[in-house]
Amino acid sequence: MPGARVASDLWFTEYVSPWDVYQHGVQRLLVAKQTRYQQMYIIETGSYGKALILDGKWQSSTVDEFLYHEALVHPACILHGEPRRVLILGGGEGATAREALRWKTVEKVLMVDIDEEVVEACREYLPEMHQGAFDDPRTEVLIGDALEYLAKGEARWDIIISDLSDPIEEGPSFQLFTREYFEQCRRRLNPGGIFVVQAGPTSPAEMTLHVRLASTVRAVFPHFMHYVSYVPTYASPWGFVLGTDRPVPSDFDPSEVDRLLAQKTKGGFRLIDGRTMRMLWNPPKYLREAIAAETRVYTLQEPPKFFGEGIAKQRQNL
Amino acid sequence: MPGARVASDLWFTEYVSPWDVYQHGVQRLLVAKQTRYQQMYIIETGSYGKALILDGKWQSSTVDEFLYHEALVHPACILHGEPRRVLILGGGEGATAREALRWKTVEKVLMVDIDEEVVEACREYLPEMHQGAFDDPRTEVLIGDALEYLAKGEARWDIIISDLSDPIEEGPSFQLFTREYFEQCRRRLNPGGIFVVQAGPTSPAEMTLHVRLASTVRAVFPHFMHYVSYVPTYASPWGFVLGTDRPVPSDFDPSEVDRLLAQKTKGGFRLIDGRTMRMLWNPPKYLREAIAAETRVYTLQEPPKFFGEGIAKQRQNL
Amino acid sequence: MPGARVASDLWFTEYVSPWDVYQHGVQRLLVAKQTRYQQMYIIETGSYGKALILDGKWQSSTVDEFLYHEALVHPACILHGEPRRVLILGGGEGATAREALRWKTVEKVLMVDIDEEVVEACREYLPEMHQGAFDDPRTEVLIGDALEYLAKGEARWDIIISDLSDPIEEGPSFQLFTREYFEQCRRRLNPGGIFVVQAGPTSPAEMTLHVRLASTVRAVFPHFMHYVSYVPTYASPWGFVLGTDRPVPSDFDPSEVDRLLAQKTKGGFRLIDGRTMRMLWNPPKYLREAIAAETRVYTLQEPPKFFGEGIAKQRQNL
Amino acid sequence: MPGARVASDLWFTEYVSPWDVYQHGVQRLLVAKQTRYQQMYIIETGSYGKALILDGKWQSSTVDEFLYHEALVHPACILHGEPRRVLILGGGEGATAREALRWKTVEKVLMVDIDEEVVEACREYLPEMHQGAFDDPRTEVLIGDALEYLAKGEARWDIIISDLSDPIEEGPSFQLFTREYFEQCRRRLNPGGIFVVQAGPTSPAEMTLHVRLASTVRAVFPHFMHYVSYVPTYASPWGFVLGTDRPVPSDFDPSEVDRLLAQKTKGGFRLIDGRTMRMLWNPPKYLREAIAAETRVYTLQEPPKFFGEGIAKQRQNL
Repeated sequence: MPGARVASDLWFTEYVSPWDVYQHGVQRLLVAKQTRYQQMYIIETGSYGKALILDGKWQSSTVDEFLYHEALVHPACILHGEPRRVLILGGGEGATAREALRWKTVEKVLMVDIDEEVVEACREYLPEMHQGAFDDPRTEVLIGDALEYLAKGEARWDIIISDLSDPIEEGPSFQLFTREYFEQCRRRLNPGGIFVVQAGPTSPAEMTLHVRLASTVRAVFPHFMHYVSYVPTYASPWGFVLGTDRPVPSDFDPSEVDRLLAQKTKGGFRLIDGRTMRMLWNPPKYLREAIAAETRVYTLQEPPKFFGEGIAKQRQNL
Repeated sequence: MPGARVASDLWFTEYVSPWDVYQHGVQRLLVAKQTRYQQMYIIETGSYGKALILDGKWQSSTVDEFLYHEALVHPACILHGEPRRVLILGGGEGATAREALRWKTVEKVLMVDIDEEVVEACREYLPEMHQGAFDDPRTEVLIGDALEYLAKGEARWDIIISDLSDPIEEGPSFQLFTREYFEQCRRRLNPGGIFVVQAGPTSPAEMTLHVRLASTVRAVFPHFMHYVSYVPTYASPWGFVLGTDRPVPSDFDPSEVDRLLAQKTKGGFRLIDGRTMRMLWNPPKYLREAIAAETRVYTLQEPPKFFGEGIAKQRQNL
Repeated sequence: MPGARVASDLWFTEYVSPWDVYQHGVQRLLVAKQTRYQQMYIIETGSYGKALILDGKWQSSTVDEFLYHEALVHPACILHGEPRRVLILGGGEGATAREALRWKTVEKVLMVDIDEEVVEACREYLPEMHQGAFDDPRTEVLIGDALEYLAKGEARWDIIISDLSDPIEEGPSFQLFTREYFEQCRRRLNPGGIFVVQAGPTSPAEMTLHVRLASTVRAVFPHFMHYVSYVPTYASPWGFVLGTDRPVPSDFDPSEVDRLLAQKTKGGFRLIDGRTMRMLWNPPKYLREAIAAETRVYTLQEPPKFFGEGIAKQRQNL
Repeated sequence: MPGARVASDLWFTEYVSPWDVYQHGVQRLLVAKQTRYQQMYIIETGSYGKALILDGKWQSSTVDEFLYHEALVHPACILHGEPRRVLILGGGEGATAREALRWKTVEKVLMVDIDEEVVEACREYLPEMHQGAFDDPRTEVLIGDALEYLAKGEARWDIIISDLSDPIEEGPSFQLFTREYFEQCRRRLNPGGIFVVQAGPTSPAEMTLHVRLASTVRAVFPHFMHYVSYVPTYASPWGFVLGTDRPVPSDFDPSEVDRLLAQKTKGGFRLIDGRTMRMLWNPPKYLREAIAAETRVYTLQEPPKFFGEGIAKQRQNL
């Protein structure tokens, strides 16, 4: 006792850690597919709308994704002030592109995602996420490996956004959370350009990945900032880190931010405005202290190992 | 596929909504008891330390409770500047008292909690929470009904903190989330005194309770403020609302806050400092807009009905 | 601790009782549909092959359905010895028809099922179940209400099989587990004909439905028998009851049964033969005693209420 | 949809296989302890009374344990007709001893169980199971290793019952499901003595362990028999195998069995009588065929690996 009334008999079950499990009732299963790289679901839930899940990890859901995607894109753009060329590494849902395209200054958005099947499924089943971003003439989608793209090309960008799935063991992205990768990103920025990375949970129970990613970005860039947005379906507040050769202000004047957004974007924000930028730019004490104290960095030799397993690892285990 | 390795075969299962379930592996079950008022567990989890659960609702856990208790207590105290007399309604764990007692100006903390068995169990099994707050000579614990205490007495307070369990149907506290109750609280404040209430989840999927509680506090007090802290185990960011007859500043100067805290408290904060106050004082856009647009208030005739059930309701249903 | 490795993150969850929950990892969701009468899934599981689920209740799965369908059909046919005309009430998967059609003596199998969408989905997605039974020229499918069919028609049958989903509250079939319905069935039997009904769990924790159904059949027919087959996915051994005006032997001679089956059927049994008939004809002591002691019967005025809810009830509750 | 009302927020979760999970709502947790050998719970459930769980595997529960313990003990005793000396290997709950002591002919019951903490906890918390068996002057409990006891001693027995927990990887008992162990048991039988072993699930989805254990017993003894009882909480029908140098009849005459039980036992059976012996002695066709076809046996070099993990294995994995 007590117990409760539950409304579903089909549950998507995220194993957040070996000790913490978050379940969401499934109303409809729109896509269930093993792609070349990962296991993909697109489900319709009871509370959080439609959701994309890769290798057992919740990526985003239509009801609360704005808390993630607006936080991922706009702080870097606001800091820059005049973003023209935006590179997105990952970003399959198209929602990161959607946010970048709010900026009237943006001339080009290039999405490099390794998994064409994910991009296609999102395009078809998650129109609420991309909202036409794939059809914007400024958008280009390149199916390929982010590391390879960075290593081979020379084009430069004002904003580079690392919107990759979490670095689970033998998943497709764990190498992309390392110093070497961040250095490649830095090399491909225009002067004054900004790199931003989705950077893991910031729960006091589980913030190692975030803290060390912040330390890694700090080791690569002259200036950096870390901030937090809370996305309920992630079962933890979520961290972001940006790095740049441009000085990062210690805070923002809300009215100046609002003026900039009014002038340079087409609007439509649900999370971001001047006051929210203040919220983001003042992360909580425990996190500032933990990051200040951290010295280790992730490298290709010592990459992160986030709880979870890619399909290769799964196959070994079963 | 995928799936994962799980580390427990005994799970505490919180039915957050009929569609969302959060499970935590139990390492030890310290207390399992049906008190006169509610069903109580104290468990030891794998990730979040020890936790108190009442009527199936997670109250707090040792690893992340500071994100709740510091956010509940200190904004009101900082706004006041010189709190001497603090009244806590509910607050069984003793952690709210613990935070109030950090203020050297505080002369008296009165906790009025209806459930002696909960208070006693917390005192014995959750020393990490109260940290001796019950033994501080400034603390007094009164076992009794908060509404009755407010209605009958005349003593006045600088800070009144409503730290009650969520207003589930036929639970012990749903009447205490209404205009009538807030008016009683206002009547018992000293001039310049501040009332603050824990005010429910602020997830975009589930923010009705919070938004309407903010509207209710606003209807009762000349000045009010709402803010958010993220407590991972609540499976949602969490809202707080304060009301007062003292003007509420639109923001805080971090260094002034830090100075005040250094001078008036004994320190030891993990969440709160000047910059965190800025974070709290600038809640996200979607929430500010929803609260600005809300006109309904909760009354004794139309009290909130939060998902969950008290034991009386449970007995009817089984 | 311990815990285990689990292989799925999508689980079908059967609420067997408010206290007992059985979960099966879903590999593929083949059908998820709300029909006019009930909520239907066809899933592919990890251990038990493909399964049909109606209103949250597991109906049958390809790996263990033979334990149900052979037990449902053949004892009545063996007892009869020469079944020609078989009426199946319910039986959407087509597996009950499949078993009846093993009898070379059978000239006609009529299936009366209320839910055309279920029949069609099974036909398309569960060929392992019907194995062509729908295409046998002896089979006729009538979409309609079983009670109505019985009340209006006059055709008589050698075997009538009640293969309905469990009598959950406001589900489509709870009226069909009553004396009135059994009387209608009796009226439609040829002399020496046999009625058999799937009759619920026989777990010592939950055998009320079974025991009282046996009592109800006994009240309607001069002779009756009850027996049990274990179907692992039902999370309980499962009961069956048959009634007839033909004397029921107290046991079977295995070799005579084997001779009859060799002569009159096309074979292919996995559960049934002479020795298994002995197993079935000697149900366990606790069940024989409980049924002997039962005096109540189910009627239209006092129908069974099995744990579970039809969609009409669900709509009221949410 | 649908969903249901659940009555608990604390669930014991048995990982029956990586794809099948059985959960029982916990009303009270009576014991939770890591012994020297295994992880032990004694819980009070909502439907099945009190239950003992070792290393995550459900051992027995007060509501349905008679289906296991009567099936384990009495067929061998009935076959023997005059059991005087009974050796139980394992059997911590004391319920196997309880059943053996029903036989008035029994002069001595020796229980050899490796885990004193389990025996003590059962004695204290599960009086419904042992019902005083530990206090019967004919009972002796020896704490020690079954293999060692068998190897070193010379005493002979009429009945040897292997009532061990399942052979999970690195659990305390996997070596005791091998030919070598069965040979030790045979050596310690009196002429005409009988060995019986609890022998795993017989679900069509998971019967490998049972089938090969039957094959192993058959390889060691001149005569053998396999049979099945259904124990709902095991989520599968459950197999038993016995071996002996005494010819095993192909069936029993129910009235002779009833006469024997009336004469030689003090009664009180809930499962076993003459007719139930017929049920047990006629296992289902699919199982007889699978066992007839099996040729492999378990040996110390190739012991069984049942799904589940002992605590040593757990420690490696976490």
